[in-house]
Amino acid sequence: MTYCVAIRPDSGLVFLADSRTNAGVDQVSTFRKLSVFERPGERVMVLMSAGNLALSQAVRSLLSEGISETEGVWAAPTMFDAARRVGEAVREVYRREAHILQAHDVSFNISLLLGGQIGQERCRLFQIYAAGNFIEASDENVYFQIGESKYGKPILDRLANRHSSVDDAAKCALLSMDSTLRSNISVGMPLDLLVYEADSLRLTRFASIDANNRYFRMLRTAWGDGLRELFDDMPEPAWSDPASPDALAPAGLSHEPVRAAPSGHAVATLIFQTLAQSDSTRAPDPGDVTEDDGTPGPG
Amino acid sequence: MTYCVAIRPDSGLVFLADSRTNAGVDQVSTFRKLSVFERPGERVMVLMSAGNLALSQAVRSLLSEGISETEGVWAAPTMFDAARRVGEAVREVYRREAHILQAHDVSFNISLLLGGQIGQERCRLFQIYAAGNFIEASDENVYFQIGESKYGKPILDRLANRHSSVDDAAKCALLSMDSTLRSNISVGMPLDLLVYEADSLRLTRFASIDANNRYFRMLRTAWGDGLRELFDDMPEPAWSDPASPDALAPAGLSHEPVRAAPSGHAVATLIFQTLAQSDSTRAPDPGDVTEDDGTPGPG
Repeated sequence: MTYCVAIRPDSGLVFLADSRTNAGVDQVSTFRKLSVFERPGERVMVLMSAGNLALSQAVRSLLSEGISETEGVWAAPTMFDAARRVGEAVREVYRREAHILQAHDVSFNISLLLGGQIGQERCRLFQIYAAGNFIEASDENVYFQIGESKYGKPILDRLANRHSSVDDAAKCALLSMDSTLRSNISVGMPLDLLVYEADSLRLTRFASIDANNRYFRMLRTAWGDGLRELFDDMPEPAWSDPASPDALAPAGLSHEPVRAAPSGHAVATLIFQTLAQSDSTRAPDPGDVTEDDGTPGPG
Repeated sequence: MTYCVAIRPDSGLVFLADSRTNAGVDQVSTFRKLSVFERPGERVMVLMSAGNLALSQAVRSLLSEGISETEGVWAAPTMFDAARRVGEAVREVYRREAHILQAHDVSFNISLLLGGQIGQERCRLFQIYAAGNFIEASDENVYFQIGESKYGKPILDRLANRHSSVDDAAKCALLSMDSTLRSNISVGMPLDLLVYEADSLRLTRFASIDANNRYFRMLRTAWGDGLRELFDDMPEPAWSDPASPDALAPAGLSHEPVRAAPSGHAVATLIFQTLAQSDSTRAPDPGDVTEDDGTPGPG
């Protein structure tokens, strides 16, 4: 598995990738999934990939070593055109490989993120699918994820937006990665983090983050401790006073669960049971049972 | 889709279910997925279900209305036996339905959570699979989820454990649901929340939570605001000083990304480009290019 996330605030671009690949839990390797196409002063492009390793290596080689007439992404005049060339490379690999993979029951599984800046254009970020088609990040939707995306999505939805600084976007990506690392062991360290400041047109901030990285360890610990404190500070729900602002079951709504009514012998047992407990002040109104229409709620 | 979560700390049991079902985005309904089997003073059992609605309704009806010889879960002497009976009901429905569903390309998709307490036994919690087999929660692993589980898992991993009070476990379940509601529109309100205190053997705390619920709205808002404050308090990574404790790229590790080396014409362009920029103090060492072995990193 893989987890890669890229964020495109107005201030620049942030890319973060794990480095674990596996073919079953008994065959785990480290491969780097982020690669850089840089011509200082002219273009910086970053490509991250998830899916079948042989496919993503083939796509990368086509792109960096040049597809016959297109010279890969180096010659792309715009980021849109670069994304189109990445899509073409995916389609080229599909034409060569897909039917043979299919004979081996291997699906054509690849997804890519491409972000960067060329010349005077603004920073742009694209997600390219296995079909070679692609979408672009927008001001409302500033991030893309590939691979194991769900665990790390809520924190991005809360904290990443177009007004984030690149350093805040990097913190956010690292926290998103932290949640993913904790929940899916097929996502693993070291991490490649690349932080690009808009209009710099060269690569100045890059870190390879391993388990001993002091900043990342501090961030994980402080975040975990902070979450626990925040959680402890939240008021408890009030159950006994339906008028309290913290009442979970306020007056005015029906707060009855769906109840399963036993039938036949079981009903007789229930009635007996209820009568036997009539000395208890908390014994329920036997009417509850007959009010229930007997059709249990579905899921 | 569905999201249900149950937590079993030492203090009791917490169950939380959404109520949205859908067959495509253009056919959305509200169905309650949590149902209660209660004989006050003797047993409280709670069943939650996810998957195909017709299948889970069939299983519930078998369980509450009694399977011929077993009388469903009402007659189970222990929670383990109740879970076994739920599994048997799933298998009974499988025998009746699966081959016909298969002819219509509908998979036999159902999963269930069963928790509760019978007599002197401690509280127990089970997850039952479509094959009718099941697992039980333990002191190390106090929660189960069914349906759309990933978005809401990190918060449970951080905050739910055997020492939680039932009210804390309820808060935790609600925050887990909050993350899920934000990320998957096929999970929807109202929510059924049931909080059971160990050894009470009756149902005293239940809430139906809709979008206007003051406590849940407060919790979501306070949590979101708190997360943002916590995030803002985290130190920024230090890039310029590799000796800083907040350095993301500390000395002693190689911090070079995988670089794609252009070939043929592109290399010539790169060298020209680099020479043309030799007046820039930040122009990279052209040696970088030749040091790169030209094999881009895979994903």
